[in-house]
Amino acid sequence: MNKIEQNLWDIMIKSQFSNYITRGLYMSTIKQTIDESNSKVKSIYQDIRDSRKTNYIGNFWRYLAFDPLLLKSVWEDVKNLMVKDTVIDKKTKEMIYMAVSITNNCCYCTHSHTATAKKLGMTMKEHSEFLSIVALAAKTNQLVNGLQVPIDDVFDADKQD
Amino acid sequence: MNKIEQNLWDIMIKSQFSNYITRGLYMSTIKQTIDESNSKVKSIYQDIRDSRKTNYIGNFWRYLAFDPLLLKSVWEDVKNLMVKDTVIDKKTKEMIYMAVSITNNCCYCTHSHTATAKKLGMTMKEHSEFLSIVALAAKTNQLVNGLQVPIDDVFDADKQD
Amino acid sequence: MNKIEQNLWDIMIKSQFSNYITRGLYMSTIKQTIDESNSKVKSIYQDIRDSRKTNYIGNFWRYLAFDPLLLKSVWEDVKNLMVKDTVIDKKTKEMIYMAVSITNNCCYCTHSHTATAKKLGMTMKEHSEFLSIVALAAKTNQLVNGLQVPIDDVFDADKQD
Amino acid sequence: MNKIEQNLWDIMIKSQFSNYITRGLYMSTIKQTIDESNSKVKSIYQDIRDSRKTNYIGNFWRYLAFDPLLLKSVWEDVKNLMVKDTVIDKKTKEMIYMAVSITNNCCYCTHSHTATAKKLGMTMKEHSEFLSIVALAAKTNQLVNGLQVPIDDVFDADKQD
Amino acid sequence: MNKIEQNLWDIMIKSQFSNYITRGLYMSTIKQTIDESNSKVKSIYQDIRDSRKTNYIGNFWRYLAFDPLLLKSVWEDVKNLMVKDTVIDKKTKEMIYMAVSITNNCCYCTHSHTATAKKLGMTMKEHSEFLSIVALAAKTNQLVNGLQVPIDDVFDADKQD
Amino acid sequence: MNKIEQNLWDIMIKSQFSNYITRGLYMSTIKQTIDESNSKVKSIYQDIRDSRKTNYIGNFWRYLAFDPLLLKSVWEDVKNLMVKDTVIDKKTKEMIYMAVSITNNCCYCTHSHTATAKKLGMTMKEHSEFLSIVALAAKTNQLVNGLQVPIDDVFDADKQD
Repeated sequence: MNKIEQNLWDIMIKSQFSNYITRGLYMSTIKQTIDESNSKVKSIYQDIRDSRKTNYIGNFWRYLAFDPLLLKSVWEDVKNLMVKDTVIDKKTKEMIYMAVSITNNCCYCTHSHTATAKKLGMTMKEHSEFLSIVALAAKTNQLVNGLQVPIDDVFDADKQD
Repeated sequence: MNKIEQNLWDIMIKSQFSNYITRGLYMSTIKQTIDESNSKVKSIYQDIRDSRKTNYIGNFWRYLAFDPLLLKSVWEDVKNLMVKDTVIDKKTKEMIYMAVSITNNCCYCTHSHTATAKKLGMTMKEHSEFLSIVALAAKTNQLVNGLQVPIDDVFDADKQD
Repeated sequence: MNKIEQNLWDIMIKSQFSNYITRGLYMSTIKQTIDESNSKVKSIYQDIRDSRKTNYIGNFWRYLAFDPLLLKSVWEDVKNLMVKDTVIDKKTKEMIYMAVSITNNCCYCTHSHTATAKKLGMTMKEHSEFLSIVALAAKTNQLVNGLQVPIDDVFDADKQD
Repeated sequence: MNKIEQNLWDIMIKSQFSNYITRGLYMSTIKQTIDESNSKVKSIYQDIRDSRKTNYIGNFWRYLAFDPLLLKSVWEDVKNLMVKDTVIDKKTKEMIYMAVSITNNCCYCTHSHTATAKKLGMTMKEHSEFLSIVALAAKTNQLVNGLQVPIDDVFDADKQD
Repeated sequence: MNKIEQNLWDIMIKSQFSNYITRGLYMSTIKQTIDESNSKVKSIYQDIRDSRKTNYIGNFWRYLAFDPLLLKSVWEDVKNLMVKDTVIDKKTKEMIYMAVSITNNCCYCTHSHTATAKKLGMTMKEHSEFLSIVALAAKTNQLVNGLQVPIDDVFDADKQD
Repeated sequence: MNKIEQNLWDIMIKSQFSNYITRGLYMSTIKQTIDESNSKVKSIYQDIRDSRKTNYIGNFWRYLAFDPLLLKSVWEDVKNLMVKDTVIDKKTKEMIYMAVSITNNCCYCTHSHTATAKKLGMTMKEHSEFLSIVALAAKTNQLVNGLQVPIDDVFDADKQD
C-alpha cells in the first residue's frame, strides 16, 4: 500500500466508514443500547464486567438491553450456567454451546462461544476434533432421517439400571 | 394384572405383536438387514462387536447395511472419532454429539448417544446441566435471530493474537 | 366389533397394553417422575394445578421434574409469559408458540400448544388461516435462502424514525 | 467528522461504493430484476404498489421476478393471506410470520416482517414480549427433544369433544 | 406362530387394534376427513385419483381436507409441479423433494416421496447414492457453519457472464 | 461516475479496502490457510485443481486446510460422490446438494453448488423449477408438522413388493 492509499485508508477508518459497515450492513431489528443511563442496565453491565473480568460488553447484551428485564433474566441464566463453576467444566460447557449454535446456524453465538472456548484453553487440535464430531453428527442425523431408522428398545431409560 | 391378562400378554409378547409395533409403526424407507451373510457387512459387524465389546448391533447399523460401502465409511468415521481415544475425552465427545442430535431433533441419535454417555459415566447432575445448556443455547440463538445482532469485531479469528 | 373382539379389547385396555404403547414406544431419555413426594416438585405441581385450574399435569412437567430447579425455572417462565395476563392476548401468544414449535418440528409442543389455543378460543377458521401463514412463511423463507436475497436498506431499525 | 472526511464520505456515497456493498457482499444466486419492461412483472409490481400503498418494491420481489409465474403465485398468496383482511388481524399475522422466519433463521424475512409489524402498530413492549415467547418456545422445544417427552393422550384431536 | 397366536392376531387385526395404533399413537391436531360428502373435497379427491391413477388417497390429503380451499391450492401446486411433465424429470423432482424433507426431518414427506421415487424407477443404487449426497451436504453445511467460511466472490451471479 | 469518483474507486479497489470487506465482515472462527507449504495440503489442492480443471481453490478448502486430515477426508468424499461419474448424473447431484444446503440455510454451500450446477448446464428454467419444488416441499413439510399427519401404512418399505 503506497502513501496515498495509506492516507485514504486512515481517513476511512477514522470516518463514519467502519461504523457504516458494521452497523449498516448487519442491520438489527432493534436499536442498539449505547448509553448506560438506565440503572437496571447499568448494574447488569457492571455484573457482566465483574464476572467476566473485562470492560467489553458484547453486542448481544447491547441489543438485549432494549428490554432490561429480558436482559437481566438471560444474563442470570448465562452467569449461573456458563460463568460460574458447575459440575461440567467451563471449556466443555462452551463446546456444548458451540455445538447447538453451529447446528442452529447462529453465526453470532458460534463466533462468541468459539472465542470464549479458545480463551478457556480449547486447543487447535480440540477445535478440529470438535468440528469433526459436529460434522459427523449432522451426517448421521441426516442418514437416520433418510432411512427412518426405528429406535432400539435397549435405549429405553426405563429399562436401564 | 390378573391371570387371564397375564396369559394374553405372554401370548402377545411371543406373537408377531412386538415385532409389529417396532417394525410396523416405525417404518423405514429401506428394509432392515438381518442376515449377516454379506462378507463385508459381517466383518464390519464383527469390528463393531469387538470395538464396543458387545454383541448387540444397533438398528442404525442394521439399516445402513443396505449399502455395505456406506456402512463401512460411516463406521470408520464413528470408530476413529468416537470409539478410539482422541484428544477430547469420550464422555465429552458423546455430549457434543448429543447436542447436535437434540438440536437437529434426531430422536434416534439423541437416544443412542444419551445411552452411551450414561454408560461412559455421565451423571444425572451432568445430564441435567447439559440439558440446561442446550436449552439456553437454543434460546439465545433464537434471540439473536429475532434481534439480528451484529457480530462483534473482537471475535475475528484473524485478530486474535 | 363383535362380542369376542370387544372382550379382547377390554382386557387389553386394562392390561399393561396401553401402558406399553404409551411408555414403550415413546421412550424418553429420563425416567418419568410419578410420585410427588419431593416437596419442591409437589409445590410446583400445585402451582400448575392452581394457575391452570386443572388437576392434570402434562408429560413435559412429569419428565422435567427429574431436576426440580430446572422444572421450577421453566415453569416460572411459562407462567409469567403464557399463563398470566400480559400485553399480547393469550390466544395470540399460543399461536406464536405454535409457530415456533411447528417450525422446529417439535411434536409435543405443537400438540400441547394447539390444544391450549383451541381451549382459549382459536376457531377452526383461525387454525386453518394460521396453518396457511406458517406454511407460506416456510415457503418464502426457503425461496429467500435459494435466491440469497439481499436485505433492503429500508428495513434498518436505526433508520426508522 | 471533519471537512475532508465529509467530502470523502459524500463522494463514496455517490459513487459505486454503496452499491458495491449492498450488491457485492450480499450476493444472490439470480440477477436482480430492475427494469420492469416485462408486462407480467410490471402488472404485479403495480398490484404490489396499489395494495401496499407504497412505491417501494422490496428485494424479495425484485429477485423473484426472474420467474414471473413464480412471482405471481407467491404474491397472490401473500396478498390474500397477509395484505387482505381475514379472520386473524394483520399485526398478529405478521407476528406469526416473524416467529417462523426467526426460527428458520431467515434474516430477510425476519427484517421485512418485523418492519411491517411495527408499521401495523406492534409496540416496543409487544415486540419484547414476542421475542421472549419465541425464545422460550425454542428453549422448551429443545428440552422436549433432549428428554424425548412422550405426547399426552389428552392432546388427541379426536378425543376433544 | 402357533395356532392360538394366529387366532389372536387375526382377531386383533380385525378389531379396533390396528386402528388404535395408527390413529391413537400418531395423533393429529385436526380430525381426519373420511367422508367425501363435501363437493369441493370430493372433486379434488377425484382429480388426485385420476391424475395419479390410483384409488388411494394419502393421509396428507385426508387431513388437509379440513380446509377445502387450502387442500385445493396445495394439490394444484403439487399437481402442476410434481405430477405433470415439466422441464425436470419426475424421478429427479421427487429426489429434490426428498432432500428437503429429510433435511427438515419431516417423516411423512420423507416416506411418501421416497415411495413415489421408487415407483418412478429410483433404483437401490440411486437411493443409496442419494442418501450419501444428502448426508455429505449436511456434513459440509455444518463445517461451514462451524468455520464461518466467507463466500467466494466468484460465486456472484452478477459476475457470471 | 465522474473522474474524481473513478480515481477514488480505483484507489480503494487497489487498497486494503476490498480485502477488509471480504475478510473483515465475513469473519471466520479459524484463520485462512493461504500458503501451501504443508505438503499434505499442497497435494490435495493439486488434486482439486486437476479433478476440477481449474486453478481456483474455494474458501471452503482454504479454511478446512487448518486440519489437513479433515481436509483430505472431506475432499475424498466430495471427489468420489460429486466430481466422479456415478449412477446419478452430475447436474442432478448438484441440485440434490443445493436442496439440502438451502433447507439448512447454508449460504456458502447454496452459492457454491448453485454456481456448479449452472456450469454443469442447469438452465434458468430448471433453476426456477427447482426453486419452486424446494419451496413447495418446505411448505408441505410445515403443514405436516402443523397437522401432525400420521404416516400411511402403505409407505412401509417392508410391505413394498
